[in-house]
Formats: sequence, C-alpha cells, structure tokens
Amino acid sequence: MKFTTPQTLKGIAELLNVAFVGNPDFPVLGMNEIHVVEKGDIVFVDHPKYYEKALQSKATTVLINKEVECPAGKSLLISDDPFRDFNTLTKHFNPFIAATASISTSALIGENTVIQPNVFIGNNVKIGKNCVIHSNVSIYDNCIIGDNVTIHANSVLGSDGFYYKNRPEGFDKLISGGSVVLEDYVDLGASCTIDRGVTGNTTIGEGSKLDNQVHVGHDTLIGKKCLIAAQTGIAGCTVIEDEVTIWGQVGIISGLHIEKGTVIMAQTGVTKSLKKGTYYGTPVKEYRQTLRESVYLSQVTRPSKK
Amino acid sequence: MKFTTPQTLKGIAELLNVAFVGNPDFPVLGMNEIHVVEKGDIVFVDHPKYYEKALQSKATTVLINKEVECPAGKSLLISDDPFRDFNTLTKHFNPFIAATASISTSALIGENTVIQPNVFIGNNVKIGKNCVIHSNVSIYDNCIIGDNVTIHANSVLGSDGFYYKNRPEGFDKLISGGSVVLEDYVDLGASCTIDRGVTGNTTIGEGSKLDNQVHVGHDTLIGKKCLIAAQTGIAGCTVIEDEVTIWGQVGIISGLHIEKGTVIMAQTGVTKSLKKGTYYGTPVKEYRQTLRESVYLSQVTRPSKK
Amino acid sequence: MKFTTPQTLKGIAELLNVAFVGNPDFPVLGMNEIHVVEKGDIVFVDHPKYYEKALQSKATTVLINKEVECPAGKSLLISDDPFRDFNTLTKHFNPFIAATASISTSALIGENTVIQPNVFIGNNVKIGKNCVIHSNVSIYDNCIIGDNVTIHANSVLGSDGFYYKNRPEGFDKLISGGSVVLEDYVDLGASCTIDRGVTGNTTIGEGSKLDNQVHVGHDTLIGKKCLIAAQTGIAGCTVIEDEVTIWGQVGIISGLHIEKGTVIMAQTGVTKSLKKGTYYGTPVKEYRQTLRESVYLSQVTRPSKK
Repeated sequence: MKFTTPQTLKGIAELLNVAFVGNPDFPVLGMNEIHVVEKGDIVFVDHPKYYEKALQSKATTVLINKEVECPAGKSLLISDDPFRDFNTLTKHFNPFIAATASISTSALIGENTVIQPNVFIGNNVKIGKNCVIHSNVSIYDNCIIGDNVTIHANSVLGSDGFYYKNRPEGFDKLISGGSVVLEDYVDLGASCTIDRGVTGNTTIGEGSKLDNQVHVGHDTLIGKKCLIAAQTGIAGCTVIEDEVTIWGQVGIISGLHIEKGTVIMAQTGVTKSLKKGTYYGTPVKEYRQTLRESVYLSQVTRPSKK
Repeated sequence: MKFTTPQTLKGIAELLNVAFVGNPDFPVLGMNEIHVVEKGDIVFVDHPKYYEKALQSKATTVLINKEVECPAGKSLLISDDPFRDFNTLTKHFNPFIAATASISTSALIGENTVIQPNVFIGNNVKIGKNCVIHSNVSIYDNCIIGDNVTIHANSVLGSDGFYYKNRPEGFDKLISGGSVVLEDYVDLGASCTIDRGVTGNTTIGEGSKLDNQVHVGHDTLIGKKCLIAAQTGIAGCTVIEDEVTIWGQVGIISGLHIEKGTVIMAQTGVTKSLKKGTYYGTPVKEYRQTLRESVYLSQVTRPSKK
Repeated sequence: MKFTTPQTLKGIAELLNVAFVGNPDFPVLGMNEIHVVEKGDIVFVDHPKYYEKALQSKATTVLINKEVECPAGKSLLISDDPFRDFNTLTKHFNPFIAATASISTSALIGENTVIQPNVFIGNNVKIGKNCVIHSNVSIYDNCIIGDNVTIHANSVLGSDGFYYKNRPEGFDKLISGGSVVLEDYVDLGASCTIDRGVTGNTTIGEGSKLDNQVHVGHDTLIGKKCLIAAQTGIAGCTVIEDEVTIWGQVGIISGLHIEKGTVIMAQTGVTKSLKKGTYYGTPVKEYRQTLRESVYLSQVTRPSKK
C-alpha cells in the first residue's frame, strides 16, 4: 500500500518510537510484502535467515530487528518487533480502518480491507485483501479470513463450541482449541454466529454465501459454493459437501454428512445423513414424500361437508 | 433544541473552528430548523437562494457559507460546510448521544432522540424525533427512521439482500441499491436484521412491533400495526398487509402476499400467499385443519394397548 | 484487588481529582471491600453511620465524603462521591476491562472479571467475580450477573419484554420494570437475547448453559443445570424446572410449565405444559408418538411401485 501523503524516515521512526539509520528526510512512500515491494516502500524482516533478501529487495527502507550495515541509497528502522511495528503502520496509514475498531496488535489485515466502526478483532486474527467487515462484528482470537470476504454487521466468529460433560457437580466445559476459517469469497450475513472448532477448525469453503442469523457449530465443515438462507442452524461436527443449498430455518443435528449438490427446503429438520437429493420436513424425508404426506392428511381429515 | 447552559458566539466559533461576525459575547442559547427557530437560536443555510430567509428569520445567529452583511442585533458564523457544522453542534450539545457512538457526519438525528454507546450510524441516515437506539445497533447508509421509533440492542438495519446469481465461476451478487424505512412508532427488538432493498426499500409500516431476532429480507413491505414475534424470518419481496399477527419462529418464503388481519401461528412455514384467516403448520394450512391432522394422526397410530 | 504497581496517596488523589490528608508518598497498594481489606488497601465509606468502622478497619487509606480526623498511620481521600470514585479506581486499575467498553459509573464489577472491547454496561448493573463478557455484548440497566458467568459476543441482556395492548390508536406498550438475573456458572452463547421482566425478573438458574442465538422472553424462569441448544426461543412467563434439556430451534409459547428433567427434541413446538418425559414435533407430542406418526405416514403414502 502507498501512503496518502509521502512520509520521511524520521517521521516513521517517531511514530514507531524506534531508532533509524539514514537521512532523516529519506522519503518513505508506502509499505508492502517482500515479493511486491517497490522503491520507496518499507519491508519488514525479523529473522537473520531473511535479512539479506530484505536488504537486497526493491524496498528502500528495511524495518529490521538488528542494526546491520545499511546498503547504499537505503535506510533502516531498528525495531525489537518488526512484525508488530509493521502492523502499527498498516493501521495508522490504512484509510479503511475505522478509528473505533478494537484491533489486537497481533492481527494481520490485508490491503484494501475495510474495517467498519466498533469491530472487535482478537489476537492473531488474519484477514485477507479486499474484505469488508461491517460494524459491531466480533472476531475472536486466531480466526483466519481469506480474500474478498464480506461479513455483515454484528456477526460473531470464533465463540466457544457448545460442548459440555454432565458431571454431578455441574456441566464441565470442553475447551475450544480450534478456530474458524473463512475461505476466499465467502459472504456472511448480519448476526451470524460461527463457533470455533473444539479440536480442529470450523471451515466455510470458498465462494459459499450465508444469509443473516445463520448459526454454524464447532468443527463443522461447509464446502465450496454452498448457499445457506437465513436462520438456519447447523450443529457441530457436520460435513456439508460442495454446492449444497439450504433454505431458511433449517436445523441440522451434529455429526451428519450431506452430499454434494443436495437441496434442503425451508424449516426442514435434518436428523440423518443425506445422499444427493431434495429434502423437506421434520423429521427429514424426500421432498416429494413430505408433500404427498401433507396432501394425504388434508384429504383424510377434511370435513366431508362444509 | 436549547443548550443546557448558554453559550457565546466566540465559544461556538472556536468549537467549530470557524470565523464569526458579531460581538464575541453575543449569546447563543440553542439551535433549530428555520420554521421553528426562536431568538437566541442558531439557524444554518448553505444555498444563496435561502440566505435572505435565514437572515430575516427569528434566529439571531446564522451559520452560513458566505460572509454576507450581518443584520442588526444578529451574528454570523462563517463555515465552508454549514450542514456538517450544524451536525457537529447537534452531537456536541445533545445530551442524548453517547460519546462512543460512531455517527457519520452526514447523518441527521432528530431532537430528543437517544443514541446509546457503540451504535454505528452510516452516511445519510435520517432518524426522527423521540427515538431510542440502543447499544451496538448497526445502521447502514441511507436508512430512514421515523419518529418515536425504538430499536433494541445489536439490531442491524440495511445489510445487503441475499440475492445471488449462480454462475459457473461462483455466485454473482446483486448489488443492493435500496434502503430500509421504519415508519413512525415502529419498535424493533434486540438482534433483529432488516436487509436493505435491492431495487426499492424494505419498509416496516407505522406502529408495527417486532420482537427479538426477527429477520426481514430485502424489498419486503410490512404494513401498519403488524405484530411479529421472536425469531420469525420473512424472505425478500413479500408483501404483508396491515394488522397481520405472526407468532414466533414462523418462516415466510419470498414473493408472497399476506392479506390484512391474517394470523399465523408459531413455527408455521408459509409457502404460499394467504387470504385473511388463521394458519398453522409446515407446509402451511388453515389452523383448524392442521389441528385436525394432528389429532387424526394421534388416533390412528397410538398403540391399542399400553 | 492489588494494583499491579504500588501507588502513592498523591497519585491516587490526582487521578480522582480529590483532596487528601496524609503524606503525599503514603503507599497505596490496592483496594477492597471492608470485610476483606488489608494494610495498604483503600476502603470507601459514604455514610456517617459507617465512618468509624471504615476508619478502624485494616485499610490504611479511607475514601470518605467528609474531612474527619485521620487515624495515626493512615491517610484519607476526601471525595464528594466515594462510591463513584471507588468505581473509577476499579476501572482504572483492573487490567481486564477494555478501554473501549462503555460502562456506567454506577455499575459494579467483581474481581478477575474480563470485559472485552465495545461492551455496553448500563446503570446499576452488578457483575460478579471471574466472569468473561465478550465483545459487543449489551447489558441494560439493573441486570444482575453472578460469579463465573461467561457471556459470548453480541448477546443482549435486559431488552424490553414484547408485551403490547392493542388499542384502536395503536399498540400500547407495557413498561418493563423488572430485570435479568444470571446466577453463578451460567454460560450464554453468542447473540442470545434475554428480555427483562415486566414485573419480576427473567432468571437463568445456576450452572445452566445456553448455546448461540437463544431467545428468552420476559419473566421466564429457567432452573438450574438446564441445557438449551442454539436458536431456541422461549416466550415470556414460562417456568422451566431444573435439569431440562432443550435441543435446537425449539419454540415454547408463553405461560407454560416444563417439569424437571424433561427433554425436548430439536424444532419441537411446545404449545402446552409438559410433565417429565421426552417430547418431539409441532404441535408437541411424546417423542415416540411423533416418530410413529412419521413412519405411519411414510407407509400409507409411499407409491406402491417405483
């Protein structure tokens, strides 16, 4: 990313409260990762193994955790934690991050990603490029969000799985050690809740789209290009293959397997694994079967005269 | 609105960082719109067409975007953007707006409206008088909220409609160009989600009351004096006439028409348009018919001995 | 609680902007309530009836609303509102309260309780010890939360009950005068909504666990050790006894009584009070009965040849 207005080496050093090597007025025009840096950019490096690569890159300012010899025509920023300070710069200069968002200093946010006000982003969260995170979204520690993801307002990623052991003295909670992964091009509606995995991750596959108020339980895997309408709830540890369509207010119990291309009609209660097909009703049956049952019941119970 | 304590012309000019014409100690007692201003009030004007009207109004301080001749006994505040600065004053002096709310400078908020902490209000949002917007509510750009509206905590207005075209390379999203309109005396419960219209507006009519966790899809029109209980979901493009009662966890698919005065019992799955009546069951039937079917099934399947 | 680093009398007085009596360097090591104070602690007292007890306690600094004679070896902080200032200190020195939380000065928060960013806590809220309140949670006035309670992100406690009288001129709202009580060891998932009581309190009993997106209506009483899965909605004024298990997307209408140990399967629509047992279906029947009906319907309607 390029800064809106050109900066100086001294200005950046003061912002980060770090020492620098080079002309105080040395121009600093932007920052980037090493494979795409250009002249005027800051690159960061925090492992001796990569020092030489960074110093020889096209970047003209190197944010580094050791005072090394400065290559001609370049400058150094000497930091005890280049990673953290690189993030500080991203947040300071990124025009897309609202002032009232609460973002952990260990979070990593890609370029062109917009963070709206009052968003909370926990430790070690990674968010890719070109994302929009709307207001009042809560993202717990360690969640990983790909590129081109939209998360609408007030959704929650990474809350604890609902998993308790019933002991005489009370429910004993299984600690959730996993996280949430949203792959590229996922859209989440408003007020969705995606629980973290207990052991692995809860994953939503590339290009899948979820409507408002959808709940996804711990360790559930949702494939690519799935469509899930509003207020559907999917319990933990369920596997949903690619290109599954789930209409509104469907409930799916835990531990099931839904085959690729399956369609589940609104309000269906899925209590068993499903082969590819179209389903409806509580408990779940084939779509046409549930319709037949509904028609049959109307016929056998309708008053004979009226 | 009147300020809690009287201000001076110089004090207001410093607050806005603008020039002024008049006695520095000139008293400024409040602010109002032109049709209701009184002596001591600030009025704002930003178009030459209305300069004369503002200068001749009862307002004694005119916030204006040109240094004109100041009428006797009056004072001027010279601003490059009187609209923005008028809003700045509203937010500064309105005792009802929490310091941690994130409000676009282009939002317009009526008198006596309370904005609780951590509310997000986007660009060009209009909120009427005597409203209460509870904490952590998210209101996207362009939403219009009438007078005497209550929105409970963590609700979302104006998120995108759930409308995708299935293309081989992935879902292609239809951009939502409409907005959300809540008419006067609407109450929204906590954690409701009201999507913006794709082409037109999603509208909730005067005096309608929604319980918690209700979802309303894009371009849906809800009439006046409707009552909608918790966790009901209404898909897009549905028309619900006046005085309809919908109990909890009802689902209504898109594109339907529900006649005035209809009553829909809890958990009903509405899959077709409904004439005025009382309905129940999934798929939806008349209330008494669904009850008959339930009784019939109990009779024909209950074990003969037990 | 002990402060992370020792403070001085003068430092505390400056923080609170109050006068003090004693050596400016008098050590202040922590703060506590009167029955557990130790040497080095601040205690507060705001009623003459308790002055003597506070001055003679083990606390060596007394935050008091009158300049009294200072006991030997002690110090005084003279405040016009010791209660408010004691809270100010708690928030300043408690390392667990996020800077962007909006907390009423009249809220009382126990030790070791973590308040994440963007939480809103209203007036007179009491939160016990060892709680975790995740980001973007909204807690309205007067709610009472016990010890060891976890509330996941974006949940709402204390929104108004959904209770209207239908008058010719529009719905007339019954004012909610009660509150919400969460007893010790309650867990709430993300995006739950618990309405305040209209007359009494809405109460969730000790050790009960609620999953995400659960709605609990006004004046409902939930017993101890209940388990309630995601997206369940419980209307107002219902009594749920201890150790009841309710699976996902269950709906329970208002005014019912559910006996201890009852189990309600997912998506059930509870329309009547339930004796201890296992239940399923809409309208609710015994679990095995609903299963029998489903099997029967499949048998009588399945096409004879295919």
